Amino acid sequence: MRTRPLKVALLGCGVVGSEVARIMTTHADDLAARIGAPVELAGVAVRRPGKVREGIDPALVTTDATALVKRGDIDVVVEVIGGIEPARTLITAAFEHGASVVSANKALLAQDGAALHAAAEENGKDLYYEAAVAGAIPLIRPLRESLAGDKVNRVLGIVNGTTNFILDKMDSTGAGYQEALDEATALGYAEADPTADVEGFDAAAKAAILAGIAFHTRVRLDDVYREGMTEVTAADFASAKEMGCTIKLLAICERAADGASVTARVHPAMIPLSHPLASVRGAYNAVFVESDAAGQLMFYGPGAGGSPTASAVLGDLVAVCRNRLSGATGPGESAYAALPVSPMGDVVTRYHISLDVADKPGVLAQVATVFAEHGVSIDTVRQQGKDGEASLVVVTHRASDAALNGTVEALRSLDTVRGVASIMRVEGE
Amino acid sequence: MRTRPLKVALLGCGVVGSEVARIMTTHADDLAARIGAPVELAGVAVRRPGKVREGIDPALVTTDATALVKRGDIDVVVEVIGGIEPARTLITAAFEHGASVVSANKALLAQDGAALHAAAEENGKDLYYEAAVAGAIPLIRPLRESLAGDKVNRVLGIVNGTTNFILDKMDSTGAGYQEALDEATALGYAEADPTADVEGFDAAAKAAILAGIAFHTRVRLDDVYREGMTEVTAADFASAKEMGCTIKLLAICERAADGASVTARVHPAMIPLSHPLASVRGAYNAVFVESDAAGQLMFYGPGAGGSPTASAVLGDLVAVCRNRLSGATGPGESAYAALPVSPMGDVVTRYHISLDVADKPGVLAQVATVFAEHGVSIDTVRQQGKDGEASLVVVTHRASDAALNGTVEALRSLDTVRGVASIMRVEGE
Ligand SMILES: NC(=O)c1ccc[n+]([C@@H]2O[C@H](COP(=O)([O-])OP(=O)(O)OC[C@H]3O[C@@H](n4cnc5c(N)ncnc54)[C@H](OP(=O)(O)O)[C@@H]3O)[C@@H](O)[C@H]2O)c1
Ligand SMILES: NC(=O)c1ccc[n+]([C@@H]2O[C@H](COP(=O)([O-])OP(=O)(O)OC[C@H]3O[C@@H](n4cnc5c(N)ncnc54)[C@H](OP(=O)(O)O)[C@@H]3O)[C@@H](O)[C@H]2O)c1
Repeated sequence: MRTRPLKVALLGCGVVGSEVARIMTTHADDLAARIGAPVELAGVAVRRPGKVREGIDPALVTTDATALVKRGDIDVVVEVIGGIEPARTLITAAFEHGASVVSANKALLAQDGAALHAAAEENGKDLYYEAAVAGAIPLIRPLRESLAGDKVNRVLGIVNGTTNFILDKMDSTGAGYQEALDEATALGYAEADPTADVEGFDAAAKAAILAGIAFHTRVRLDDVYREGMTEVTAADFASAKEMGCTIKLLAICERAADGASVTARVHPAMIPLSHPLASVRGAYNAVFVESDAAGQLMFYGPGAGGSPTASAVLGDLVAVCRNRLSGATGPGESAYAALPVSPMGDVVTRYHISLDVADKPGVLAQVATVFAEHGVSIDTVRQQGKDGEASLVVVTHRASDAALNGTVEALRSLDTVRGVASIMRVEGE
Repeated sequence: MRTRPLKVALLGCGVVGSEVARIMTTHADDLAARIGAPVELAGVAVRRPGKVREGIDPALVTTDATALVKRGDIDVVVEVIGGIEPARTLITAAFEHGASVVSANKALLAQDGAALHAAAEENGKDLYYEAAVAGAIPLIRPLRESLAGDKVNRVLGIVNGTTNFILDKMDSTGAGYQEALDEATALGYAEADPTADVEGFDAAAKAAILAGIAFHTRVRLDDVYREGMTEVTAADFASAKEMGCTIKLLAICERAADGASVTARVHPAMIPLSHPLASVRGAYNAVFVESDAAGQLMFYGPGAGGSPTASAVLGDLVAVCRNRLSGATGPGESAYAALPVSPMGDVVTRYHISLDVADKPGVLAQVATVFAEHGVSIDTVRQQGKDGEASLVVVTHRASDAALNGTVEALRSLDTVRGVASIMRVEGE
């Protein structure tokens, strides 16, 4: 074993960073044995230097992250600050000054992954980010290494713990969205400003990263269709139950049937209770991967939290350190397939649509005609009437999003349709 | 991209090998892009040269596997013959003649993993074997790389598809063991001689491999306690149901509470229906991993079959080829922790015991005294009497296997105990 230690600069010492520092200390001997050399915490960059940080030598703490990454003697920079800047500039500077980088920053990787990978490659360094998607669950490494000899066709996952907690609450207690969100906030599962989670931005960033790796194609954040889950109602859950389904916020990355293009999207969807993702409870994450040869694989575990996320960061740290010792680099960006990313209109799936309609004869025929005119084939219809009001619940066969949208627009213009109460996709069948 | 191809020798072209060859051909461009150089099938060793093999150039086929691995121009040897010899000699010769090795051979790795790893290291070559455990499910790579910065405490898994198929059948249809086995055989899920599967030898080999990687300790096949599932009865399933459980053949690798030793075992066990492993159906495999920082992770997928297993082999092939191009090797054996492997007697778990007893007063008191004398604390007892016969079902708190065995021996010597109908461990709580 080499005795000269590898030097690690930790950028950020919050929820994740403090756990990374703790485990680096408590598991120092194991890490050294697994890497083949000791690793030393050489500096910790934070915003508030005065804050007491248990187990961290105050002499290592600095507010000058830039100077830290430019020191020149740093082997690995661990970026757990989050956000776009200064993380992006710091990571780029790290590569230029000879360090490899481990990051947990999904927002940055989804937005600027290509440029960061290019900077890593130019400087012959590693960029690893297992922790950026689904916390502790090994997902990036299985996708880009274990399945490197296979053809992935679909990735379907629950990749945001906050929204899964809320939806699970709504499902199990009949609570409305706001009530479930309040509970999630009180228990620390939702942040004070939950927008990034409940509007699907966080899941969309992860979908972009997963699609890119799965399809060997650059998928930018803007390529991901995104719909939040704030409008899911208790009534939607009741409808889902009637269909033997529950509702999850899903990230779905798919290769088109002809293999010539891909799509990535995030939205709430009904999935059958028999689907393994339906039983993912609380803040847990799980990701289904379908490939040509392997078939269906599922990966399940805690998608967030300081210590699970630190586990993923440290796994990357060991790999990057080992690469450094052997003078090699791990797999970089693989975007050779360069498949076009199709717009949402091209996505083909099934739909569950609730309509408020006039309670008079002929309405069903009128509605059915509109579906037929738009080439959307109906699987089942259920009519319910009460007090002169009636509702129609239509479940379609597979149709394109464009065709469905055309159908809904035409339905809205019918006199007999008072309103479209809800539209939800049906997945996982 | 390098244009000179990497040369692959395929040893064995059966269920797995033929799929490896097929995918190497159909996905040649993708593999080349992902590796950075084309891969070429340079030779295929089989036993029966005359057999027609679709898609395989007959000029490549040979019965002289030894000459093939010794050619000197082979970059990677893929060993999918199975069994101990000639696989072991061929793999060793491959390293000595400059090749790296990808193998799916759990029996060989469990028996001689240490020697093979040593041969790989001596020659500066890679030995990868993701396919040896749980087929297509990425498990070796996540354990040895993703969790390299964490401390794994427990691996609990269904790693044999044949026995899971049989037990699932017994559970869902009430069939007995023989009937379920016959169906598994008819459907091709069980081999003509099912011994390796139903007696737990296959699972034990996988447990040895998993324990070794998880605990950075050499665990030999002989270190694994093994009990098959041929004696599981319909009555056991009925008892399990009464407890809200089902029965699975589990491979369990555990670090002792004090962290100073490990155990590995394979046996049928009751697990609660609420446990994710309880809902693993048919021939699927799933493995639960518990670690300090990551918490609970689960990996699920097809544990066997030509094409899923080939997916795992090809993932390794890509990694090994990439390593070759960069002049590096991946993580080798990690056995630095060298923890002692404790005998089965030291394993601590819960037990479900059915006793046939005389239907007279005082029997329960007698039985309870025996448990107490051996330090085994009782959780629940259920008495059932009919026609002068009675049965007692005892569920214990956690106790050592040694204490339980002592208890059972003493129970057998009681006049009032006519027989011990079944003893089953209760796991996953
Ligand atoms: N938390 C999770 O469960 C989780 C899960 C997966 C991925 N991630 C990702 O991990 C990253 C970190 O998340 P977190 O939850 O640990 O965040 P956090 O608790 O808010 O910690 C952020 C840290 O960065 C420091 N920091 C902020 N601005 C800085 C600057 N300009 N220069 C130097 N340091 C600065 C902060 O310093 P002070 O301590 O002085 O405020 C703090 O230590 C994010 O990319 C996040 O998306 C988090
Ligand atoms: N099948 C699965 O689902 C699965 C799953 C995981 C792991 N594995 C592992 O993968 C390995 C291969 O399994 P398999 O199911 O593919 O076995 P298989 O169908 O029996 O194929 C074995 C192949 O090896 C060839 N062979 C046998 N002895 C040989 C010798 N002395 N020299 C050269 N070739 C020889 C056979 O030649 P002929 O074709 O001429 O008979 C045949 O092509 C085993 O280690 C197994 O444990 C299999």
